Amino acid sequence: MRNLDEHTITDAVLARHERAGSARLKEIAGSLIRHLHEFAREVNLTEGEWEQGIRFLTEVGHATNDKRQEFILLSDTLGLSMLVVAMANRKPAGCTEATVFGPFFVEDAPESGNGADLANGASGVPCFVSGNIKGPGGEPVHHARIDVWQADGEGRYDVQYSDDGEHRARGTLYSRSDGSHNFRSIVGEPYTIPYDGPVGRMLDALGRHAWRPAHLHFMITAPGYERLITQVFREGDPYLDSDAVFGVRSSLIAPWVPHDAGVAPDGSRINTPFCTLNFDFVLNRAS
Amino acid sequence: MRNLDEHTITDAVLARHERAGSARLKEIAGSLIRHLHEFAREVNLTEGEWEQGIRFLTEVGHATNDKRQEFILLSDTLGLSMLVVAMANRKPAGCTEATVFGPFFVEDAPESGNGADLANGASGVPCFVSGNIKGPGGEPVHHARIDVWQADGEGRYDVQYSDDGEHRARGTLYSRSDGSHNFRSIVGEPYTIPYDGPVGRMLDALGRHAWRPAHLHFMITAPGYERLITQVFREGDPYLDSDAVFGVRSSLIAPWVPHDAGVAPDGSRINTPFCTLNFDFVLNRAS
Repeated sequence: MRNLDEHTITDAVLARHERAGSARLKEIAGSLIRHLHEFAREVNLTEGEWEQGIRFLTEVGHATNDKRQEFILLSDTLGLSMLVVAMANRKPAGCTEATVFGPFFVEDAPESGNGADLANGASGVPCFVSGNIKGPGGEPVHHARIDVWQADGEGRYDVQYSDDGEHRARGTLYSRSDGSHNFRSIVGEPYTIPYDGPVGRMLDALGRHAWRPAHLHFMITAPGYERLITQVFREGDPYLDSDAVFGVRSSLIAPWVPHDAGVAPDGSRINTPFCTLNFDFVLNRAS
Repeated sequence: MRNLDEHTITDAVLARHERAGSARLKEIAGSLIRHLHEFAREVNLTEGEWEQGIRFLTEVGHATNDKRQEFILLSDTLGLSMLVVAMANRKPAGCTEATVFGPFFVEDAPESGNGADLANGASGVPCFVSGNIKGPGGEPVHHARIDVWQADGEGRYDVQYSDDGEHRARGTLYSRSDGSHNFRSIVGEPYTIPYDGPVGRMLDALGRHAWRPAHLHFMITAPGYERLITQVFREGDPYLDSDAVFGVRSSLIAPWVPHDAGVAPDGSRINTPFCTLNFDFVLNRAS
């Protein structure tokens, strides 16, 4: 313990954890410390670089507040969030894949009936969304709770505007007895994750952009099934192959089909062009 | 890029850094990301554990301010700081070893002549410190700048008391032409690193204490030699084998020799018991 060098220090640190309160914490801390030390040895991290690292983490900490989580942004852009999601959501083939939750979900969004317009004034091309919720055997899942949220035609979520408490382009509905649901909203556009902070500067230094391809968030919950948190991505989006947070899955890409003004899917007349999206979700059974 | 799983995501993240502004940054980021992902896979990190990690880092960030650097404390207690110091200060045998700088150095501490009392009212048993500054061949190093700082008899640094701007138990002096120096101060006691924040809670959960063994900080600078940042540790201290920041080196342990009241090393009469410490430093030549 008194003659540690850059090689022996790792085991010395781990030996301190003999009386850790939890075996799991000991395992996690041990693995983290081994990899952290191995990283520093591998790149021969200098004292100046270590100082820059401390400064960067300090800035990330100070950029994090009630409205912004810069550490989650950091985890997202380093691919850690999506890695953890992938490990936690290994599903049988045929089940809809999960992807990152993101920071824009809002608790207690308004409940809507099927067919309702969730836009509530959000800008963008009208969009009629429909689909079925199924189980792994193709059985309809009825009364599944469907939370949906999205950016608007400017690529911004309602919570990124001045806080008037209004929910726009988000809502909650339930599947019908045949597993179907439908709602009206607007077409969301691609957007950049917040890049005016330390994570943005990191992306810039690494030669990376901050764009996410256009997508629609879903969280689907039904008794007897695993909760599904996922996104549907717009076919043809220029950022499908370079999502800043690595969330795209091929199976989650779908066409937003354009239509001329005329008769909407719900039979009403619509005076402007609109889109339709049809996407089915297959839930995994709860274990 | 659209079908990443927990194994393929690592290479996908690294592939984003083709246009990184600096080859060194690319190397560091690449190694860090590989080890971070490997850690998450190795322990099969759950979404709940990831959330706890985000919360912990957020707390560390919010505990960090002008007066307190909780990220450095985290790095220190994980052994990373000492690892980086060890790599940056590989020295030929015979040269005095370096150890952690710590957070308590103060720029522009008062300059004192040899023999002066640096205590300036700090509590503790009087201590007379002496030693020589040498080069690797044993040659005396004259006019070496010697910055010294330490905790007091309560285990606290002056900057941890209310900020009256007074420097206590710290100062700067220069070696004489024969390389020698001496000063008077007080005997510092062991202390705990700040443990009322998230790092303290982490140590607690890991079954670790927050104590550092008693020590005296030195920073020695002389033209033609590498700057030496080190600490001398008090022989017999109960925490020598469990320093919370892994800074102890056997070669840096020395006896604080106790003396009865009587004649001090400088020839003056002293009415209370006192200690003496004699420690020589061997600087490495600048490369």
